[in-house]
Formats: sequence, structure tokens, C-alpha cells
Amino acid sequence: MLLDDKDTILIGIAGGSASGKTSISRRVKEFFKEVGEVTIIKEDDYYKDQSFLPFEERLKTNYDHPDAFDHDLLLRHLDMLKNGEEIEKPTYDFVTHNRSNVTEIVKPTKVMILEGLFVLEGKSIRDRLDIKVFVDTPADIRFIRRLQRDMNERGRSMDSVINQYCNTVRVMHDEFVEPTKKYADIIIPSGGWNVVAVDLLETKIDSILKNKVIK
Amino acid sequence: MLLDDKDTILIGIAGGSASGKTSISRRVKEFFKEVGEVTIIKEDDYYKDQSFLPFEERLKTNYDHPDAFDHDLLLRHLDMLKNGEEIEKPTYDFVTHNRSNVTEIVKPTKVMILEGLFVLEGKSIRDRLDIKVFVDTPADIRFIRRLQRDMNERGRSMDSVINQYCNTVRVMHDEFVEPTKKYADIIIPSGGWNVVAVDLLETKIDSILKNKVIK
Repeated sequence: MLLDDKDTILIGIAGGSASGKTSISRRVKEFFKEVGEVTIIKEDDYYKDQSFLPFEERLKTNYDHPDAFDHDLLLRHLDMLKNGEEIEKPTYDFVTHNRSNVTEIVKPTKVMILEGLFVLEGKSIRDRLDIKVFVDTPADIRFIRRLQRDMNERGRSMDSVINQYCNTVRVMHDEFVEPTKKYADIIIPSGGWNVVAVDLLETKIDSILKNKVIK
Repeated sequence: MLLDDKDTILIGIAGGSASGKTSISRRVKEFFKEVGEVTIIKEDDYYKDQSFLPFEERLKTNYDHPDAFDHDLLLRHLDMLKNGEEIEKPTYDFVTHNRSNVTEIVKPTKVMILEGLFVLEGKSIRDRLDIKVFVDTPADIRFIRRLQRDMNERGRSMDSVINQYCNTVRVMHDEFVEPTKKYADIIIPSGGWNVVAVDLLETKIDSILKNKVIK
């Protein structure tokens, strides 16, 4: 089978806000929890370090634009992981809108899942992905999920969620996320609850891992 | 893994004219040619019997409309195959625009691929599919492929291909094919040459077949 003899397999999972990227990644990782060998890298952890900006300025950053992310660092880390080296992954503090002081050691595993809004956006990252997935959940469903999540889990008001959605999330989605769908190897509609699509990914990973064990 | 313990797996591959459905189906079948156990059923073979119509009338039939197909017979045959029974599959004569006198015996195999324009269109067939695939090749590419195929292989004129495309193929696609994309478990962009997507299907089928052998 394709990919079964590669040292590391990098699966990119892109898609709009609240499309179900995280949910799919987690379910796949959970499926292999006893085997291990599946690691998730979140693009969100690679938001740029903004220590040089005062807090008020950081509030003005457009966090739904690709430029908000430190893709150079992400790229270096992907290459290190592919080379079998562990990385010191940054983490992000969503309260202070800044990279936190805490880093996490991530060890390379046979299968790595990179998930985030823009993981299919830049050619350099795209070229490193062995399987490119786009989670294509309808925009209204994504908005509803985001509304519920931001109100219930983050204490936001409905108006503030709607404003942010209409003024940045939606605009950036149409400009930078939606156009990357064309780079996908497979598109998963209704992400999160699509058991058949998740099973196809799990079966592929299982095949890759079994092949590794045989060797 | 999901589906691995089912007696028969039915994979539906839908998509527009010249999207690459046949190409994907053939590549998957070819991949398992030594193992066998993969059979393709083409919806095209189930065009309605039109013996009761004179030839001139048959020319007027809209062959890009779901009603041109004998989906009742197809459904009965799918159920027979799922029950482990062989079927006597009709074949279609595209010269006389009619069901031919020749039938073919098709034996049930572990994996059956049903491919055609409308295999995700009717609920009864959809409900029988274990994996629903939609091949989503851009319309301009599909038209170009159709133009080349119909001119080179079928001796048609450019004008006749364009007329048929604009007056029926395109209209029927938008009305009956495109809306069925939403039922797919996975969408395959750029069908035919998408090696990663084909590999995911092959790996799944391989897993199903290996599981069968173990039992």
C-alpha cells in the first residue's frame, strides 16, 4: 500500500472554524491510544509570539488570518519530527493573547496529525503532508457550533460572537480557508460525526502501524 | 474496524459525467485482481428496457435523467448479491439505445462497487451502501474529458457534444447529481488521478478482505 513504508506519515486536517477538525483528530488519536504512535500537532499552538506588543494591541490582531501564525517555526518542527527528533512545542495563552512561557516536549511518532485552519494554505507545509484532508462542514452548522461553544464555554455574548463571525471569521474563511479545499486528497463532509470517513483514516493508519510492526 | 465483519460491503461511487468514477472503480478492482472478491456493478447497465419504443423515440429519451434507469431491478439485484445470490445482470446496447439480449452472470463477492451518475440519488439504494463516495471533478475538466472522449472514441462532432452537454448533461447534473454530494461519506476531488484517495479505499478493502481470510 501507498505510504506504508515511509518512516513518518504526516496527515493534515484543514477546514473552517468549528468544522470538526479537532473532533476528528481526537477520535483518531483515541482509537490508537493503546498502540500510541499517533500524535496531534495543533496549528493553534503556533500563534505568533506577541510579547513585544502591549495587551491592547494584541486584542487588535486578526487571529483568523494566516499571518497570525508562526508557520516558519511550525515548518522547522515538522521537519525535525520527520527526522526523528523531538521538538519543544510552544503553547499559546488565549487569555493574554500571547505565546505562553510553557513549552511541551513532543516526541516523533510514526503518524503525526497536523490540524488547523491553514494547514493546506502554504505550499511548504502542504508539500510535507502525506494525506491532505479538508473537513467541509456547511457554514451555518459551523456558525451554530461556534455560537454554542463561545457562549457556553467562553462566556461570550451572542452579539460579540455574531460580530466577530461576520467581520473576521467569515471573511477570512472565504479568502484563505475555503480556497484550500482544492488541495485536499479527500474532503470529509459533516466532520465530527462522519464515522465512515474517520474509519477510512483509522484503517489507513492501522495499516501503516501494522506494517511498521512487521518490519 | 468498522464494516470488517459484514458479509458484503457495498461501495457506491457517484459523480458527474466524466468525473472519473469508472477510472477509480477500475483501478481499485485491478489492485485486487489476484485476490478477486471485488466486483463492479455499473448503473449504466441498468438503463431501462425500451423495446416497446421505436428507434426514433428512443433517441428522444433523456439518458441523463434518473428515470432513464431501471432502479427497481438494480435494487433487487443489490439485495440478491447481498444475500449471496448470483444475478443475471442486463447489458445495454448504446447503438440501438436499448437493453440488449445478452445478460451476464455476476457472482456475489465480499466487496461490490456500484458506480454511476445517480447511485446516491435514491434513498433506497443509498441506504444499502456501506461507503458512499462522490467524485467531485471540476465541471470544466469534466466537459473537456467528455469532449475528447466523445470526439475521439465515438466519432461525434464538437457541436453535437457541446449541444448535448449544455442542453441535457449540464442541466441534469445540477438538478440530480450535484445535490447528492451531501450524502457522501467522502468526497474525492480530481477523480481518476487522486492516488491518495484511491489508496484509502484500497486500504479499507484490503482490511476487509484480510479480516475475511482470518475468519
